[in-house]
This record gives sequence, C-alpha cells and structure tokens, in this order.
Amino acid sequence: MTLHKAFNETTYQVIGHGFRNIQVLKDAFAQVDENLDSDMYGNGRVIEDFQEKMEKVLGKESAVFFPSGTMAQQIALRIWCDKKGIKKVAYHPLSHLEIHEEDGLKELHHIDPILLADQTRVIELEDVEKLTEDISCLLLELPQREIGGQVPSYETLISISNYCRDKGIKLHLDGARLFEILPFYQKTAAEVCELFDSVYVSFYKGIGGIAGAVLAGESSFIEQSKVWKRRHGGDLISLYPYVISSDYYFEQRVNKMQQYYEEAKELASLFNQCEGVVTKPEEPVSNMFHVHFNQPKEKVESKLIDTYEKIGVGLASNLREMNENECYFEVSIGDRYAKVPKQVLHKTFELLNKKLKG
Amino acid sequence: MTLHKAFNETTYQVIGHGFRNIQVLKDAFAQVDENLDSDMYGNGRVIEDFQEKMEKVLGKESAVFFPSGTMAQQIALRIWCDKKGIKKVAYHPLSHLEIHEEDGLKELHHIDPILLADQTRVIELEDVEKLTEDISCLLLELPQREIGGQVPSYETLISISNYCRDKGIKLHLDGARLFEILPFYQKTAAEVCELFDSVYVSFYKGIGGIAGAVLAGESSFIEQSKVWKRRHGGDLISLYPYVISSDYYFEQRVNKMQQYYEEAKELASLFNQCEGVVTKPEEPVSNMFHVHFNQPKEKVESKLIDTYEKIGVGLASNLREMNENECYFEVSIGDRYAKVPKQVLHKTFELLNKKLKG
Repeated sequence: MTLHKAFNETTYQVIGHGFRNIQVLKDAFAQVDENLDSDMYGNGRVIEDFQEKMEKVLGKESAVFFPSGTMAQQIALRIWCDKKGIKKVAYHPLSHLEIHEEDGLKELHHIDPILLADQTRVIELEDVEKLTEDISCLLLELPQREIGGQVPSYETLISISNYCRDKGIKLHLDGARLFEILPFYQKTAAEVCELFDSVYVSFYKGIGGIAGAVLAGESSFIEQSKVWKRRHGGDLISLYPYVISSDYYFEQRVNKMQQYYEEAKELASLFNQCEGVVTKPEEPVSNMFHVHFNQPKEKVESKLIDTYEKIGVGLASNLREMNENECYFEVSIGDRYAKVPKQVLHKTFELLNKKLKG
Repeated sequence: MTLHKAFNETTYQVIGHGFRNIQVLKDAFAQVDENLDSDMYGNGRVIEDFQEKMEKVLGKESAVFFPSGTMAQQIALRIWCDKKGIKKVAYHPLSHLEIHEEDGLKELHHIDPILLADQTRVIELEDVEKLTEDISCLLLELPQREIGGQVPSYETLISISNYCRDKGIKLHLDGARLFEILPFYQKTAAEVCELFDSVYVSFYKGIGGIAGAVLAGESSFIEQSKVWKRRHGGDLISLYPYVISSDYYFEQRVNKMQQYYEEAKELASLFNQCEGVVTKPEEPVSNMFHVHFNQPKEKVESKLIDTYEKIGVGLASNLREMNENECYFEVSIGDRYAKVPKQVLHKTFELLNKKLKG
C-alpha cells in the first residue's frame, strides 16, 4: 500500500478541492452556450472579456491570458531586462523559475538571476538594499510556496516597492497564490498589485481551475508580452478550455479564501499539537503550510497509512524527505476541508499522535 | 455587409468542418468518463495512451504531445542544432517559422535559417544540393501551406532524405497537414515519416480538433524535447482538453482524407472554369488549395457577397490582396462540403462566373 493509494481510498480528505479529473472540465462547461465562438489566436469575446475582468480585479491597465505561469513570468522578466538593457534579475533561491523550469530563463532568455535571502525565510528590504550589482527586475513570490507559504509584512512590501521605484528596478509579482493571501493582508488584489509593475496570477492553485495564468501591467508591457507569447508557442488558436474554466472557478472560489485561511490555521494547530510535528509557518498566512515530522520518511509513511485506513481521513498523498530523520508534506486547503466532520478529524489526530509517540 | 458576415449567414459552406465554437469541445467530451484522471505535467494514462497511439501511427520510437506546433518545431530544430553544434537550419521562405512566429526561432534559440526555393514553388533536391553552408537540419513542410498546399514528388522526398542522411543533415517534417496528403502520395503516415528524423503533426487543421500537436522521433530526442517543453512553459499541469479532443477528432476524420482530397479536386475544377480564376495548385494534392482572382479585392468581395446572399452558399470568409489587380483566398475542405447539394453548388458557380465576367 502506498501513501498515494491509501489517500485516494479515504472517505474524507483535508486538502484540495477534489480529484483532478474530467468532471472539473464538465462542471465548468455545463452551463456554457455551445454556440459561443472559440477565441482565435488571442482575439474574441471569450478571452477578451476575461482579460478585461482581470484588469479590473488586479487594478492594471491591461491583462493577457497565458497557458502557463512559467511562460508568463519568463516573458515578464525578459521584457524588463530588454527595456533596461541589463540581463540580470533577482529572486528567492526557491523561486519557481529557479527550481521547476529546467532553467528556461537562462537557456531561452540568457538572463542571470541573483538569489536573495535563503531557503529558510522570505526576501526582506535589507536583502534588496545589499545588492551590489544592478538588476532590471526583482521578483517577489507571495506567498513563498516552497517554504510553506510565508510572506513578508505588508510594511516590508511597501518599503521594497518604494526602494525599487527609487532605484529604477522593476518589481514583478509571482502571484500564483495571490488571492490566497489577501485575507491575511486584509487588502484587495488591486491594492497589493499597485505596489508592483507587473503581476502574474494562476487559476489552478487556490482557484482550482484546469490550467492557465494571467499577466497584467501597463498596456505597452502587455502588448510586448503578446509578441513573446507567440514566440514561445503559447498563442494557441483556442485557449477557451482554460479561459472558461478559469473564470468559472474564479467566481466559485475567490470569495472563499478567508474561509480556507481560517481552516488552514485550525488544521495547522491540530498538527502542531502532535509529538515531533511542526508546521511552517507555525501559523499559516494563507490556505497553505508545510508539515514537518522529526522521524524518517518510511516510519511516518506507515503511520499515516495506518491512520488513513483506520479512520478514513486523508491528510496528504505524498511525503518528501528532508534528511534521514526529517520529512514533510504540503497542505493546501480547498473545498474538501469543510466536508470533514470535526469529530472524525479529531479522532484522526488522536490516533496519529499516539502512533507518532509510539 | 462584410464578406465574413455574409459567409456566416449562408445556409451551406464549402470549406471547413463547421464553426469553431464550444460545441467542438462538448462533442469531444460527451462520452468521456468524468472520473478519468487528468494528466499531470505530461504523465498519466490520458496523455501517455495518446502518445503511444501516435508513435504507432507515425512509426516512431517515441512521441510527445505539445500545446502548439510553434513550440514543438522550434524545439526540434534547437535539439538538432545543439547536437551538431551548428546553429543553422534551412527551410522554405514561407515556412510557418519564418512568417507566423514573430521570429521565435531567432529570438529565443538564436538559430539562423537559410531560405531555400522561392515563394512560387516547393523545395527540390537541387536547392538542397546547392547549399554552400553547413546546416544542422532541413525542414520540409508537407504540403507547403502558403502556396496553396503543394508537395514535391515522392521520389524527390526520397532523394532529399537520402542526400541529407549522406551529408549528416537531420530532416524534420512540418506535417501540420500530413494526414491530408497521404491519399495523394498513396502512402501511410509511417511510410512518409520514415524518411524524416523528426516529425510534427497538428490536430486542428484537417483533423479539426481544438488545438494541440505531437512531436515524434527517437526516444533520446523526445526526452530532450520534454525538457525544452518545460522551459518554453508548455508542460502544463493538464493538457487533457486538447489531448482528448485531438484523439476524438483524429478517430472521426483521419479516414476521411481521401474524400476531402477528391472533393478538393472537384471544387478546384469548378473554380478554374470561372473567368479570370485560377487555383494553386491547379489540381490539388490535398484537401486544400488557393483561389486567385485577376480582379481587385473590393470588386471580388462584393461579387462574392452578392452570390452568397442570392444562393446561400459560402465559398470563403476572407479575401487577401496580392496586388491591386489580384486577390486570393484559401480553401480547406472538411465535413461541410459533402452537405452542400450539388445543384445549389452549381448554381453558385454559374452566378459567380456571370458576375466575374460582367
């Protein structure tokens, strides 16, 4: 029995919105008029309407739909580098661009990143001030996913934004999970985006769509990004399967981020009460956090499987090794958490805690 | 009244499969089990099964699904250039890479193309033999879309393939419309692909899917292409909206290419009987051809609109200017042609011919 299989056989799951299957597409299209025209290479009502909606949500002059954030962000950094004539940017060592994109930024765009802060914390103003080389753009990821979804304080964001404007450094937001941190900051998306020159948001994390991203900024920037989108092979004849599902799940879930955030804090506190378990961050600032166990991966795995099988509540479907005595998994709260009866949830943690102690 | 609007209001249309609307997706998904899992970043049954099917169809060791041909082809050329250490390729002056991709090959991959043949004809063996510079790869587009869908003879293909193998030049097939030329060549897809080191095919031209492409070749080549797919931002978490629709329409239409080809020859002959009208090629070799008029665009436009409105048969939805006394449109035969009653079709051409003479 693998952890993944045991998870899939549980009655309740604390993470995610649901299984990623064809139903996700069928639900999004059930009420859509079959006579609605496809978009055509970035034009047409279906894509333009959604882009205009996102311009308003993000408070930017212009927005464009991309098949992926990988494509959107490399392009944003390329445009800022070309504009300034300096092929250097700065971001966190665990940025998506640094660890998940096979070095596309370097291999396709020949842009050198300077890594700020370290793998335990987010970028602070001091990290930016200490830069000795000139850069075209600073990328901030809010929240910083690979360290459990941490964010700097809002005051820090403002000070970094002011500093970059003074120094002629463009500030780009990796907002893959932007909507998820708005309840913590108590700000609108447009208020946060106002601090940035360009912004990317995703529609399949907290929003739970099929795939797709939006890049937003000034009109001239977005026009240039469309040229690069074509160069990358992202200007598809039809993007509507992603556009329509993004819009559908955006409407369903953008107003549930406060609920997910509260639920994440509740669940993190249950984990933190277990022997040898700590969450990062200790108190979540979004719908996500990481759960670290001070035991070897194989041991934790079998204890989790036992617990899933006895109580029927799945906590995670995969576990990653940090070192031989530490492992962790990622938690991302979605629609499923509210469906877990509290009594069953508490029984799960009672049993898990007993097993971790034993 | 625009030509586009007049075309959309006709009862019958001679070109295409149907309107590109949401129905295309709904039809493809109607019978798909909603519990079928999404692909995940290139893995999973839904994408792997289709890739394996295409390996067999194309007779190649390995195949990978791409969101677009733009992405797939730039990557193929990049891999061949890196392998040989020479950043030069050759293709036709009207190649998709040269005129429709905003110079992605040059801007992202720094590859220089050498243009072979000219805008009136396809690449012949002599063009390749005359090359004075060493190249890593030669790209042949079959059929050459921008000149009405022309192809070299099959003997020429064999001789070019042999020449390239002798000289250590990789041969890549832009097979956006590969299935459409098989009836003319009287060959299987695998037989044609055997002449090439790498092959790209599309699923939204003659096949009529929503979007999507497959790149095929040896396993080591395909493994490298997956790394570049991620770099380009094309390794989406879910590509199933395109994979499933590609498979659905492939099954529906791959065996109808002979019919489309016969219908294209029939329709071209009707055009060629009109005053001052010639098709390129004169006799089509696929489901497509171009129709040239020796009159100014505005004149032809109003004659077409009149004909559409009187008889109710749409011939084309847009007309392109060659010069002030010549214009043309592209014809691509699909499912619609068979639905046009022959009597009504002939009335259309009688009236059009009268108007063109007048």
